[in-house]
Amino acid sequence: MKRQGQIGWKEGKGLYREAYTESYYEVRDFVKKKMEEAGLETRIDSVGNLFGKLEGTDPNAKTILTGSHLDSVTAGGILDGALGVIAALEALRTIKESGKKLKHSLEAVGFIAEEGGPLGGTFGSRAFSGQVKSLPPQDALKAVGLTKEDIEAAKADPNKYGAYLELHVEQGPVLWRKGLSVGIPTAIVGITRYMCTVKGVSNHAGTTPMEERKDAMYDAAVIIHKWLEYMRNQKGVVCNVGYIEVEPGHPCIVPGEVKFSVEIRSDQEEKIKDAEDKLKQIVSQVNDCNAVAELFIQKPPVKLSEKIIETIEEVSKDLEIEAPRMPSWASHDASPIAHVIPTGMIFVPSINGISHQKDEFTEDEDMVRGVNVLTNAIIKLDEILD
Amino acid sequence: MKRQGQIGWKEGKGLYREAYTESYYEVRDFVKKKMEEAGLETRIDSVGNLFGKLEGTDPNAKTILTGSHLDSVTAGGILDGALGVIAALEALRTIKESGKKLKHSLEAVGFIAEEGGPLGGTFGSRAFSGQVKSLPPQDALKAVGLTKEDIEAAKADPNKYGAYLELHVEQGPVLWRKGLSVGIPTAIVGITRYMCTVKGVSNHAGTTPMEERKDAMYDAAVIIHKWLEYMRNQKGVVCNVGYIEVEPGHPCIVPGEVKFSVEIRSDQEEKIKDAEDKLKQIVSQVNDCNAVAELFIQKPPVKLSEKIIETIEEVSKDLEIEAPRMPSWASHDASPIAHVIPTGMIFVPSINGISHQKDEFTEDEDMVRGVNVLTNAIIKLDEILD
Repeated sequence: MKRQGQIGWKEGKGLYREAYTESYYEVRDFVKKKMEEAGLETRIDSVGNLFGKLEGTDPNAKTILTGSHLDSVTAGGILDGALGVIAALEALRTIKESGKKLKHSLEAVGFIAEEGGPLGGTFGSRAFSGQVKSLPPQDALKAVGLTKEDIEAAKADPNKYGAYLELHVEQGPVLWRKGLSVGIPTAIVGITRYMCTVKGVSNHAGTTPMEERKDAMYDAAVIIHKWLEYMRNQKGVVCNVGYIEVEPGHPCIVPGEVKFSVEIRSDQEEKIKDAEDKLKQIVSQVNDCNAVAELFIQKPPVKLSEKIIETIEEVSKDLEIEAPRMPSWASHDASPIAHVIPTGMIFVPSINGISHQKDEFTEDEDMVRGVNVLTNAIIKLDEILD
Repeated sequence: MKRQGQIGWKEGKGLYREAYTESYYEVRDFVKKKMEEAGLETRIDSVGNLFGKLEGTDPNAKTILTGSHLDSVTAGGILDGALGVIAALEALRTIKESGKKLKHSLEAVGFIAEEGGPLGGTFGSRAFSGQVKSLPPQDALKAVGLTKEDIEAAKADPNKYGAYLELHVEQGPVLWRKGLSVGIPTAIVGITRYMCTVKGVSNHAGTTPMEERKDAMYDAAVIIHKWLEYMRNQKGVVCNVGYIEVEPGHPCIVPGEVKFSVEIRSDQEEKIKDAEDKLKQIVSQVNDCNAVAELFIQKPPVKLSEKIIETIEEVSKDLEIEAPRMPSWASHDASPIAHVIPTGMIFVPSINGISHQKDEFTEDEDMVRGVNVLTNAIIKLDEILD
């Protein structure tokens, strides 16, 4: 685990292993070699996803897929993504070395470009699951040497897969705060984003009387304050105003326009709907300016497979590991895949809830417990799947 | 008036006559030639201010100075500044052509770089009045071919001047709304600026529970909303939040830091003090983050000369022009000069209150009335000044 984390690591800064960079290819080669040493048959698909296969005894049985992604955000941590790939490799190696013959073929996967970038987030797993619904910009594709045909060729036949299992760091503080080693996501939250635009009239901030101003900043502050105030008292939903821009942006000019982003996440569609309704209501009530909230991203919540969730619960219980159900507040490769293959996830705690930066770590014993749950869940699924 | 406004004009865009540019030098040459045609003795000082002098009969009497600036903001209007210079030229020409011999010498001035820029606002008049208290950055000086010595050499002996009179467009809607041709500023408002910094903790906007967030945007919105709400109900003071910046500035990251500017203007120091106190009180009350308000500009209000104000009132009355007293909500060359020379101003209306853009205009008859008031005020001052 720690050796892969040295590839792309800058001391004191974090992991620089963005997809399609030199350090990305280096870690993929490293993992590919480890897969081959473990006796897996490797291949790299047309967009750059890495697979390592262990043949099952029944050629008609579907494959059980497990893994995550190998790329990192800029200045990220060593576990986000990579832990799930190494865990998959360990699980398959353990099963192979145990001499136990499974009916289903097993495949470990290291997806590419899960983290947002010019190609859009979860790019590798979207290509694999046939979920690249709008083609990334041509220059973004060209920059990494990909074509439309490459994306199409990466699409797998979902009927050949019986399950996808992804182990991942929680990236939040819930498990860590409770002192638990494992959590079982029941759904990946939906993400809805609006861009709000408040249009006023840009004017001299000295000579324009207060009562004549159409101050876009005032109305923007009213909307942000009122809406965040309301949202802080809701449960089962989180929200964020992470981006704001003012035009013309000078201390002595009354703002003519303020734009800000609004993000809503929940595993329950009705909670997202309520937050949207409240936002639109507040936006419609401003007096001085024209304000609009325009939808620009709408990813509905994705429910994970109840059968797989129960399987993970069962093996956790057998291992005497307390593993509560919980939503996944972040998006994962599991999101696109869950649309076409029965999917489950296993969370392990993030120390202090820290993620997407150099201090992202998980205690060794929690990683070990997570890998044990994953390994046993695969064995259990081999028994219960067709 | 309209001919000077063609120099630097871009059709449909406005006036591009920033200080020390080609179009600036062109208009200065144009006005210098007009001064010479009117029989004035011209000179350009070491920073670029243009003067045209009409000698008085008493060599011991102080000079009466009148004018404004010749530079414009980028994409500005044709009257801001230039009108006061042309009005000064017209007043001196009228007096000279009338054959009337005044005791005091008269000087028309076209200041340079009144509009904000790398050298700081009111640069030419600050150099003239010895108010360049901190030297502009070396590269800014070098870019326009100036040295510290040039600034020092431009400083005039204030004891040689008995009065400074500046005619200027109001740049606000007060006179225009009331249908008046002339206003008499009693003071130039003080300008106080703070930079507020709200420091929270940047975090994942999905996985970080709402109750654990230290969201800099939330607290910034609370401060801006509450403070602007309070200020909108105050009289005799205006304020603005014109600049805002968020770090890291991504829709899916909880803001770690938000910075915004706060500007307060009033002609009454106690009103500025009250606005500052309220701001500090609101800033100190935020819960989640650390918030500070740091002072970065503090220009106190400048009272204009009561004797000159009364003189302008008197000549307006003689001309049957209603001319109310009012504050100047914008800064002018009159601000630095008032610290060392008795100073008065004459406002003429801005159509619809528009300024600093291409649609900045004043009705011809208002301009004529303003110039008449200026001319008569000069003649009156010649009588009453030592």
